[in-house]
Parts: sequence; C-alpha cells; structure tokens
Amino acid sequence: MSKINKVVLAYSGGLDTSAIVPWLKENYGCEVVAFVADVGQGEEELAGVEQKAIASGASACYVVDLKEEMVSDYIYPTLKTGATYEGTYLLGTSMARPIIAKAQVEIARKVGADALSHGCTGKGNDQVRFESCFSALAPDLKVIAPWREWSLSSRESLLDYLAERNIPCAASATKIYSRDANAWHISHEGGELEDPWNEPSSQVWTMTNSPEAAPDKPEYVSLLVEKGEITAVNGERYSPYQCLVKLNEIAAPHGVGRVDIVENRLVGMKSRGCYETPGGTVMMAALQAIDELILDKSCRKWKASLSEEFAHLVYDGRWFTPLKDSILAAAESFAQQATGEVVLKLYKGHVQAVQKQSINSLYSEDFATFGEDDVYDQSHAEGFIRLFSLSSRISALNKLKQQ
Amino acid sequence: MSKINKVVLAYSGGLDTSAIVPWLKENYGCEVVAFVADVGQGEEELAGVEQKAIASGASACYVVDLKEEMVSDYIYPTLKTGATYEGTYLLGTSMARPIIAKAQVEIARKVGADALSHGCTGKGNDQVRFESCFSALAPDLKVIAPWREWSLSSRESLLDYLAERNIPCAASATKIYSRDANAWHISHEGGELEDPWNEPSSQVWTMTNSPEAAPDKPEYVSLLVEKGEITAVNGERYSPYQCLVKLNEIAAPHGVGRVDIVENRLVGMKSRGCYETPGGTVMMAALQAIDELILDKSCRKWKASLSEEFAHLVYDGRWFTPLKDSILAAAESFAQQATGEVVLKLYKGHVQAVQKQSINSLYSEDFATFGEDDVYDQSHAEGFIRLFSLSSRISALNKLKQQ
Amino acid sequence: MSKINKVVLAYSGGLDTSAIVPWLKENYGCEVVAFVADVGQGEEELAGVEQKAIASGASACYVVDLKEEMVSDYIYPTLKTGATYEGTYLLGTSMARPIIAKAQVEIARKVGADALSHGCTGKGNDQVRFESCFSALAPDLKVIAPWREWSLSSRESLLDYLAERNIPCAASATKIYSRDANAWHISHEGGELEDPWNEPSSQVWTMTNSPEAAPDKPEYVSLLVEKGEITAVNGERYSPYQCLVKLNEIAAPHGVGRVDIVENRLVGMKSRGCYETPGGTVMMAALQAIDELILDKSCRKWKASLSEEFAHLVYDGRWFTPLKDSILAAAESFAQQATGEVVLKLYKGHVQAVQKQSINSLYSEDFATFGEDDVYDQSHAEGFIRLFSLSSRISALNKLKQQ
Amino acid sequence: MSKINKVVLAYSGGLDTSAIVPWLKENYGCEVVAFVADVGQGEEELAGVEQKAIASGASACYVVDLKEEMVSDYIYPTLKTGATYEGTYLLGTSMARPIIAKAQVEIARKVGADALSHGCTGKGNDQVRFESCFSALAPDLKVIAPWREWSLSSRESLLDYLAERNIPCAASATKIYSRDANAWHISHEGGELEDPWNEPSSQVWTMTNSPEAAPDKPEYVSLLVEKGEITAVNGERYSPYQCLVKLNEIAAPHGVGRVDIVENRLVGMKSRGCYETPGGTVMMAALQAIDELILDKSCRKWKASLSEEFAHLVYDGRWFTPLKDSILAAAESFAQQATGEVVLKLYKGHVQAVQKQSINSLYSEDFATFGEDDVYDQSHAEGFIRLFSLSSRISALNKLKQQ
Repeated sequence: MSKINKVVLAYSGGLDTSAIVPWLKENYGCEVVAFVADVGQGEEELAGVEQKAIASGASACYVVDLKEEMVSDYIYPTLKTGATYEGTYLLGTSMARPIIAKAQVEIARKVGADALSHGCTGKGNDQVRFESCFSALAPDLKVIAPWREWSLSSRESLLDYLAERNIPCAASATKIYSRDANAWHISHEGGELEDPWNEPSSQVWTMTNSPEAAPDKPEYVSLLVEKGEITAVNGERYSPYQCLVKLNEIAAPHGVGRVDIVENRLVGMKSRGCYETPGGTVMMAALQAIDELILDKSCRKWKASLSEEFAHLVYDGRWFTPLKDSILAAAESFAQQATGEVVLKLYKGHVQAVQKQSINSLYSEDFATFGEDDVYDQSHAEGFIRLFSLSSRISALNKLKQQ
Repeated sequence: MSKINKVVLAYSGGLDTSAIVPWLKENYGCEVVAFVADVGQGEEELAGVEQKAIASGASACYVVDLKEEMVSDYIYPTLKTGATYEGTYLLGTSMARPIIAKAQVEIARKVGADALSHGCTGKGNDQVRFESCFSALAPDLKVIAPWREWSLSSRESLLDYLAERNIPCAASATKIYSRDANAWHISHEGGELEDPWNEPSSQVWTMTNSPEAAPDKPEYVSLLVEKGEITAVNGERYSPYQCLVKLNEIAAPHGVGRVDIVENRLVGMKSRGCYETPGGTVMMAALQAIDELILDKSCRKWKASLSEEFAHLVYDGRWFTPLKDSILAAAESFAQQATGEVVLKLYKGHVQAVQKQSINSLYSEDFATFGEDDVYDQSHAEGFIRLFSLSSRISALNKLKQQ
Repeated sequence: MSKINKVVLAYSGGLDTSAIVPWLKENYGCEVVAFVADVGQGEEELAGVEQKAIASGASACYVVDLKEEMVSDYIYPTLKTGATYEGTYLLGTSMARPIIAKAQVEIARKVGADALSHGCTGKGNDQVRFESCFSALAPDLKVIAPWREWSLSSRESLLDYLAERNIPCAASATKIYSRDANAWHISHEGGELEDPWNEPSSQVWTMTNSPEAAPDKPEYVSLLVEKGEITAVNGERYSPYQCLVKLNEIAAPHGVGRVDIVENRLVGMKSRGCYETPGGTVMMAALQAIDELILDKSCRKWKASLSEEFAHLVYDGRWFTPLKDSILAAAESFAQQATGEVVLKLYKGHVQAVQKQSINSLYSEDFATFGEDDVYDQSHAEGFIRLFSLSSRISALNKLKQQ
Repeated sequence: MSKINKVVLAYSGGLDTSAIVPWLKENYGCEVVAFVADVGQGEEELAGVEQKAIASGASACYVVDLKEEMVSDYIYPTLKTGATYEGTYLLGTSMARPIIAKAQVEIARKVGADALSHGCTGKGNDQVRFESCFSALAPDLKVIAPWREWSLSSRESLLDYLAERNIPCAASATKIYSRDANAWHISHEGGELEDPWNEPSSQVWTMTNSPEAAPDKPEYVSLLVEKGEITAVNGERYSPYQCLVKLNEIAAPHGVGRVDIVENRLVGMKSRGCYETPGGTVMMAALQAIDELILDKSCRKWKASLSEEFAHLVYDGRWFTPLKDSILAAAESFAQQATGEVVLKLYKGHVQAVQKQSINSLYSEDFATFGEDDVYDQSHAEGFIRLFSLSSRISALNKLKQQ
C-alpha cells in the first residue's frame, strides 16, 4: 500500500464509516479527517455527528451545509434537462454525489490531505460516481475504497471491529433496508425488495404517506416558474432549497412520488430500488407542464434526447465532464423561456398539472385573434400534406409502375 | 374540379360525414360509397349506421370489423416500441388512422372507386394521417377533403344543409366537445379545454371514473406477457382485442389512464386534449415492468430512442413507410425476449407494477448462487472505475500541468 | 390579391428577379425596392447590379455587404456543430439564406415596406428557407413568391416578358445549369446532372480544378485553430471571411471540395447536385482533426448527434428557432476547447490532416511521463472488462442454466 | 491461480503468442491448444503456422478458414448499418474479433477445454472485444490474458524467454509498428505515429500505393448491389470474400482507403492509428450511393443514428448482444431495398461514385412523366411552408404583441 499522510473521508456517522476511520488509521498509518455533507438528510442523521467522528478517531470533522448549493447547482440543472433515468428514477442519490465529492476535495485541499476515502460498497454505483468526480477534480489525490480492500463483510463483523477498539456505535446488528436520504429523496434497497416478485411492504416507505392513507380530498398547489426554476409556492417566494422543503411538506402526506423499479446499475447488474421524491415529483410535473406550452414539436423531440443522455450521465457520475457542460448548455437555452404558472392537483399518490399558462406559450389564449388569414389558412393543409407525403407517393407510384 | 366517378368515404354516421355524402354527389357528380370502420368505438355509434348512410344518399355502406386487426397489427407493434408522444399521449387516435385508411383503400379497390374522402377538418392531424396513408397505399386515387373545400363552417350550417335536402339527422346544433373513440381510448377537445388555464370539468370524461369516485380499495391484476404481448389476464387467456376490452373493464372504474396535455400538432400549432386510455395504460405499465427486468443499460437507452422516434412517426401518420418497418424491426427484436408475469395495483387513478418476473430477467433470484467469483468480484470495480474515468483523469492532469 | 404598398425583393440581377420587378409592380401595384446581398458571390455577379435594378423598375437598390457576418455568424456556428447534410453536403446555399433573409427584413423595416419577395422556384428548398426566416423575423410582412403565382415558366417567356417592357437583360435564352454561389461554395444542378447515371461533365465545375488538372505535387497548409475558428493560415492571421478567401485560393487549384450527390430536398423529392467547397472542405478537415484530439468517446458520440440534427435544421431553413439556439449552445460549449494547430496536405482532389496538436489534447505527447501507476495500470483492464461485459455474462449464464 | 486443464489460445505465430504457449504451460500446468483464425491476413502470415505452434509446445493447432463467413456475417451486417467509428475508421480490426472469438469457443468446446487465452495487451481494445465475446458465448470458461499477468514487457524479454526454452522464433528484436491485417484492412500503430504532430512516413503503409505513386489515369469500376451487398464487379459475379479481394486488387494501386486518425479507445485513452481499407472504402462508397437514391429524408436521418450507434457497438466488441440484434434488424430492413448499380471513379487516393441507379430509386428518371398534377403542384409549396413555419410565426407574433 502506498504511503498516505492525511485522508479526508466522506463520513456519515453510520456503522460503515465509523469503522473506516480506525481502519484507515491502522492500515495506512495516516491521519483521518472526517467530512460530513449536509445535503438535507435530516437533523436526526446529523445530530452529534462531529462527536461521533472524533470518538471514532478522526482528527477533525467538518460539517458543510450544501443544501442550497445542491438544489441550485445540481438539481435545477438536471431538472432543466428533464432527465429521469430509465424513464422513472429521479436521480436523487446520483445528483448528490458530485456536490459531496466537490466539497470533499475542497476540504482535502484546505487541510492538505493527500488522499480521499468513501464508504461505498464495491457492487454499487456510488463508488463510480465518487471516484469519477475525484478523477476530474483531484487526479493527484489517492483514493481509498475500504469496502473493496478489507475483509469485513457483515454488520456483525463491523460491530465487532468497533467493539474491539472500544469505539461506541449505536448501530444495531440487523438492518433490513439500505437507505440514502437527502433533501430531494430517500431510496430504499434490500430486504424483501431483493425479489422483484415481492410487493414492497409498508415498512419500506419512510418519507411519504401511502396513497391509501393520504387525505380523501385533493389539494391544489400553485407554482410560479421562472426560467426553469420554481420560485414561488402558493404565491409565496422561496429559495431553491426552501421551495423543495415546502413542496415535500405539501406532497408527502398525499403519497406523491413513490417509485418502485428494477434499474440497470452502471456496474453491469440490475438492482431493485424504491424511491420517494414527493416535492421533486411535483417540480418535475410543473416544469413538464410549462414545456408543453412553450416548446414546439422539434424542440420537444430534441429535448427528449437531451433528457435521456443527461439522465445516464448523472446516473453514471459523469458530472464534471465536458459532456455535461454541452448538454446542459442546450437545456439552459430552452430554460430561458420556461416561465409561467402551473396549478397541480395532488391526490392519493398522484400529481397532475391541471392549469398552466406562460407568457411564452405557443398555445395562446389570443390565438383566435390572430385571425385565420394571418396565421392559419385551412387550405394550406393540402399543400403541406402533399409535400409531407411526397416521398411515400413517389415510392408507391414507382411500385405501381413496376407491376 | 377533376372528374370523379365513384368515391369511398370514411363515414361515421355523425353530422359531418352525413353532410359530406350529398355534398360529394352534388359537387363531384359521383357515386358515394360509405365505409364504416369498426375499431371498437362502441355499439351506440354503430347502431343503424348503414341505414343512415343510405338515407344520406350513399349507394352502399360497408361496415368492416377491424377490432382484432387493430390491436394485433397496429397497437401491439406500437406498444413494443414503447412509444408515447411527447412523453404522455398514448396515440389512441393516431394508431387507428392507418388501419382505417388501409381498409378504406381495400373497399375502394373492391368497388372500383377512383377517389377517397374523409371528414377531417383542415386544422387537425387526422387529415395528414389519412392522406399520408392514402399516398402510400393508393397514390393513383384522388383524395377529396370537403372541410378544406366547402364553405360550411358550423354545425348549424351543416344541419341546415341536411334539412334542405330532407336528410334525417339526429345531431344537435350544439356540441361542447369533440371526441374520438376506439377500443384503445377516447379523446376530448374543445369547450373549456381550449384554455389550458381551465381544469377539465367532470363532464369531459366519459370512459373512466374520476379518481375520487374510484373504489377505496385497490385492485390487483395479474398479466401474462409473451413476446411483448399481453396474453392472459388473471390467469385467463384472451385474444388481443378481448384482452384490451377486459383491461378496460378492470381499469376504468379505478380512474386509470386519464391524461390532460397540451401537445404539438403535426400541422404546427398546439392543441389541448384530454385522453382516457384505461386498459392501455395498464398494458404499457406491464410491458415497461418486463423491460426493467430484461433489457440492459445500453438496450434501454437505445429503446428510448426507438420510442421517441416511433411516437412521432405514429402521431404523424407515417405508418406505411420504410422508416416504420425499420424501427419496428428493431423493437420486435427486443420483444422476442419480453416474456414474463406482472402484477399491477390499480388505485384511485393510478396503476403501478408491484410484482414482476421473467425467465429472461437479468435480475435473477438465483443471482447469488452464481457465486462471487464467477460473476462479480468487487475488486474488479476499481479497474472499471479507473478506465471509465480515464479521460477525465487525463484531462484534469493536463490542466494541472498547465497551471 | 391583398393590397401591398412597398415590397423589398431579394434581387440578384439575373433573369428571374429582373422580371419579378415589373411583375410585382403590375400585379400588386406596389413600389419595388431591390435588395442585393453581397455574400461573396463575386464581382462579376455584382457589377452594375444597382443600375440593372433601377432599369428594371425598382425605386431603389440596396447592396449590403454581408460577407464577414456570414462567415462569423452563420458559417462558423454551423462548422462548430460539425454539420454536413446527409453525410456529404456542406450546406453552402442553406447557410446563406438566413443571413440574406435577415438583412432583407432590415431593409424592409428601414424603407417601411409591407411585403417581402424572392425569386425562388416552387420546387426547391430556398423558398422554404426564406419564408421560414421571414416567419420568424417579420411575421407581420406579406410574402410574395412570384414563381408560385405567375404563368411564366421558361427562360424564353421571361425574356419575352422583359422585351415587351423594354427592360434590358443580358441573359441568354438557354442556360444549362442552375448555379448558386457565395464565398463558401458554388452549387450546380440541371443539364446532364438530372440523370444520376450521368457522370458530371467537365463544364459543370467552375470553382475548382479537376483532380487530374491539379498540380502533381502536394501542397501543405498550416492552420491555427482558436475556439473552433480558423484564425491563421500558414502563420498569417486573417479575418473569418478573408481566411475563407485565402483557403479557397489555396485549395481550389488542387481540386479539393468537389461533391456529387443525390440529396433529399425538404419539399419531399430528391435532387442531384454538384457542389464545390474548396476552402470550406479544408476548414472542416482541420476542425475535425482538433476534435480527434480534444473530445473523448462520449463527447464525440454526442457531437455526432448534434451534427446530424443541426445539418437538417440548417438545410431546412430553421435558423431563427429555439432549436438552433439550443443545439448551438451545446456545440459552442465544446468549441471553447477547440484550440490547436493542424497541417493539411492537399493533393489531387483530396485534403488530409497530417499533423495535429492541441493544448487541450487528451492524447498528450507527455502521456508516458504521467507514469504507469498514476494514470493507467494494465491490471485495471480486467476489472473494466468484467463489469463492462457483466450483463452479457449474466444473460449467458441464465441461458446455460435453462438448458 | 485457479486450476486449468486445457486452454485454447488464439495463436498467430508471432512473437507474443509464441511465448504465451510455454508460459501458459509453465504457469497453469495445462495443455495448450493453438487456434489460428484465417481471416485473410495473407499466406505469408499463415505459412508454417501449425509447425510453429507445435514447436512452441502446443498439443495441437487448428487453422480455421473464416474468410467467407467474416465477410458475410460480420462485415456485411456492419456495412448495412453504414457504421464508421468516429466518422472515419472502417472497423477492420473490430469486426474480426467476434468471429475469431466465436470460432475459438467452438474449438474449445470441441477439444473440451476449460479456458481461453489471447495475446492482446492490457492497454488496448482487443482484450475487451475478445473477452466480451467470451462472456456472451462461454461464460463458463476461464479467460487468461497473459499480458495482464506476466512480467515480460519488451520484445527482448520475450525473445530471451523463448531462447531459454530453445523455442525457435524468427521474430526480430525491434519492430517499429504494430500491425493487424485481415481481408478487409491493415492497421498500423507505433513508431513515429505516436506523435500526432508527425506525418506518417512512407514505410507505414503496406497495402496501398501512395496517391502520388498511383496511376495518372483514373480507373472506373462498376458494382452491382443487391439487398445491401456487392454481388458483381465489372459485370462478373463474386462470392462476398472474393468480391472484397477483387476490390482490394483494383483499389489498392490507386491509393484508395488510407486513413490517419486519433481515435478514442474503449479503455479511456486516445491512440493514433493509420488504416488501409482499399476495397472496403469502395464498397462503402457504393452502398452510400445507393442509399442516396432509395432512402428518404427521415430514413437517412434515422440511419445516421443507427450507424453511429452500431459503430460504437462494433468498436467496443459488443457483437453478441441483444443491442446488436436490434440495430441490425433495423438496418436489414432498409437493406432489402438497396439494390442497384454504381460506377465509381478511383484516382490518386480517392474514390467517388459518379454514376448510380436503382430500381427502388425515389429519384426516378421518369419523374417528369408522373406529370405536374399527379405528383407535385408548385402551389402546394405555399401551404407546406406556412404550416412548416407555423410555430415560428406564432412565436414571433407573440413577441410582437408583447412589445
């Protein structure tokens, strides 16, 4: 193993990273600096995290509030492209990785570290995302991925490892589900979900009401959209992060934003995940509604290809790449027109845009007043059709002649 | 106007085509043969349609049952591509047009007609769809589109036109919505929908319950999928059309399949439409669930591009084209693997696949038994990541050196 | 015909537009202002064009020098996307149309015209390009397309029409080829080219030497590329337009840039065209060479989709659209890195980049000095391969088990 | 190291695989069966290859003639998609890998081997291609990649290794270029090519004349194309492989098919390669010429996306995948129409299709005889343009109103 002096670890306070701190010290003989990203995972997870880190043996612990930046610089850009992975997944974990990696590198520079570490397992996407970002931002720093190195392979063995070292840890020996939370979403894997033939049990879900338990009356929410971002909810302005918090509060009780899919991991195998993205699902629906008004046929087709490409890029952790800059530039160009207002109905697990308007709408209330002559003459349709179908006609005439 | 001897009219029995029969005879001096396509629009619409046609002055009326063929040869191919127009519209009207046009041409050949006619307006997509199909199938036949020629421009004027000729017609002078129905869906336009800022009123919807009125208990339905087609519902086998009928019966009470969108018409303007596609929405969800299991990452990305391209093609009426054959061949190739079983939960306007399995699943229950060594070694991940992010690394090192 | 007071005509001084001036006056009773775009079509074509316009009856003639603007604002953006239509055509005519339309609208605003006119025929692309641009820039102005209205249908009839009005015209009654020239290219249609089974005769080509007549010694030219634009030739700096002129001078004698294709017109039929684009072909080769150095695999794949999409857009005249802005933004993002130097060899009709370098190259001369450990460890390849092919492996194992 | 009994090695008779035979025996204690694929690399390379293999210690040597199968089942499918990697590379090495891997697996099954081995280095694409194919075809067999395992790292060390074991080898200690040849092409890497700022010296090229040394008179060749394949040259019918041989004979003296590029390897870094593909370049030009005649605008755009996708797939060694089947099905659909005749002119390094015809041409010589009324009425253009540009018009009118 190459010589390491100081490593910055993406630390969560959970069982895995609690064990990684002493493991790094023992195996690399290095100082370990803990770095905790506050991406909105919640008070509960952050409570006492610095003390825990120190107790595990970290020389210091930096907790960095990334909540507003995450929504502004990672979530909104992604939303503007319309990206959803494999048609369904709203990329909640994926979008958080690059900002965490970036902040982690910044801490590493600040404390003069020569290595970076994370607690991702060797079968998942997150290791790829973190390390791809590290490659782009800090190719000179070593990367240590304990899960790919050590021989610890169960919660029990990790707990034993900590107990042997007298490091306190509140984690239990059994944990059914593996979850990842931030302001945007929470994901769930494991347990009965490992068989796609099992319906998720009610204990899977933690962020939203079930549709059955949701209120029997629909709720309407009005969103102001400005240049592709939601700037007000029911008439009140919010910062990007606060807006997301507000929409989570509104949408979660209605059971909005639950998704249950089998997806393709970047590392070649499939996994089954359940996701809860209440506020985000409402945001997506609102932006989609504005797109319906402002983008013409060719633009929507093009944007669909942007979305698909960007979804894979975000999912794969290729955030700090020229490809991201290019696709995003294309999406930002459209977003400049994405201004308007949308009213959405939330009911029993579902959100639907029921009212929409935009100053840049190509469907204008005043359409009729343009006058038939000026804008659309029905007789024009004949010419359009004749030329639109001309190659079919020529081809068919060719075949007739050849008979 | 060029000389026409005999024209076959796509006749519905409604006000427009009732007036077109005498109008064609008077203006083209030709015999008019009525052709009625039974695409599952319902008994009510078809009742007495032959008598009506004759009463309007048609020399004959052919009613052709296209229901099974439509589902087998138009709907399933489209489903296999995964096509949804602009992300939402399930193409119900679009898919019906080519089969109607094809059957109409067959009647024209049979009766020796030299022209084809339809009752589509000059501002819509259907004229383009019909006439594009005519171009491909019968480039030698004339096409007459009365709505682009005559001066009749209101329901009143059409009723007067019929009254003057003593042609009976049960149509009323006012009609709020314009609707189009077949076995797959019903569409609604007009009325208050013309302003996207209006939420659709309850009288818009005719095929499904509102989510609010839907049962308070969810219903589960089990579908057997074979090579991309649904072949059994809750264990009972059905023909393609009967399967669709069955799923409509199951899903409609739950309010499944309502959509309310502003879409881009092919002819350049936007329109607002509400659609109800209860059974079809369930079918799409089932096929999507199987795709989750059987298609790898690159295949799903590629299929997304097939879907997008095919959706525009179907929407635009470009069915009888080599482009359709090419895209469909690509989709059929995937569909050969699309075999499995899906259980879906229907509740309050929403359908969700909650259980899924396939013999061709890449997510196998037996995955673990492959053994770590044989299939996945976590240490491989490091190599993967290093090469996956190599260009980012080189680029970043370049920049470091230039500093 | 609707009332027109003053029309601005895109005037060339050729036979067609010479006849259009009096025809507009007689048929619309309006004043006709001639507008001549200098897009580098050459002194010969521009000589005396103002006098000709006045002699034809125009009330004024504006000659506007658009040469630098065309290269800067229309050609370079297109080059940055890498667009070539149907794999071959370098879009010479297509790129000139939007700038001409834009300048024509500016003249119309300046002189207070209420209509625009052009001399494009009804079977070609240019009418669509001009009028699509007019729609975007001046939807309030009427458009008159005489070739779609009048009954004049041959050069003889146009010459007679002018002779009857004593308008002098040097045009001859016969003209084999239809050509369109600007600084970027010259196109040729008609004559023996109308049969794709005919090889183009030597009289088709006017701008370049034949490869056979080209020098027997190759010539090398060195180009400096900065942010996607050629800024120096053989060490000497040039403005965008002057650079193109210089490269035409260098490449034309070598027979570089001849293309002979059957292409799909936007209006649905095919046409056969021969094009000469000597300097432009060299420019494209140089930019492609820089792309080889700076863009990684995913970026080149994405850029290929930009190119294809943009080529159709430019060909179709959809320049002043949000789609153009979006795709171009994506391409400009890449172009920011496109800086370097390329040496190209010109010989007997062909140009080849034989030397290339870039400060942003991902293929670095110093690659080896990164050291094997730092950048690429061959043992990493195994892990990469295992994960890269994992879904194939799982699928194959599935099949083995099912046997 | 896991226990291996018998391994089948893809053997070439060159230095690397000569050393691999004893190395496998010594390090894995296994029997080594040599497998030599005859893919048209030439008599010289194959002469005495069996004796060499036995002399190196192989227990047997199988030479399998794959030439016709390679052209029929790997090259033609690829040609039908129009694939060229990164716009230039004709995939000569890439297309040979899957057929070699497939035949190697077949030998392994025949001799009851439990492992496969190859001589590819750890920095290249070929290891990925071979092993991805192995994964799909024989996931149960072990794969040994000596270059990623052993410590031998230079030609000298390999020669020493063989000398120590008294294994005869005619290889020299120095070799400037790394080359790979088959019936389709030869590739060149290394030497001065490692700096893209160096023009390739004349000793790089081995298969074709330089353009300067090519005949001063052009040569014309006439090709018959049937369903996407070249079936006759200058009126004489050939099998697929013999046709390629014939076209190599014709095109190589004219210097046709040289390419010099920097490309992105799948494993993340760039490489510079020179390729000679004389006959293949002529084939591609002929098929492209037929496409110009038979595919309409939307089909050519779609085919461009097929080409791009397929090129990456072939380059990456993803041949035995469902993605390949899907894209190929789409391409085969088009190829059914690709029948016609093309005359090409070969001159000084360049090939150009100068005459082309097809019974399925949408550009028909008889076009005029369709008559203006039947097929194209110039007045239709106005309607087409109005609808084609309608969204631009509506958008522009919106902006006017807002001023």
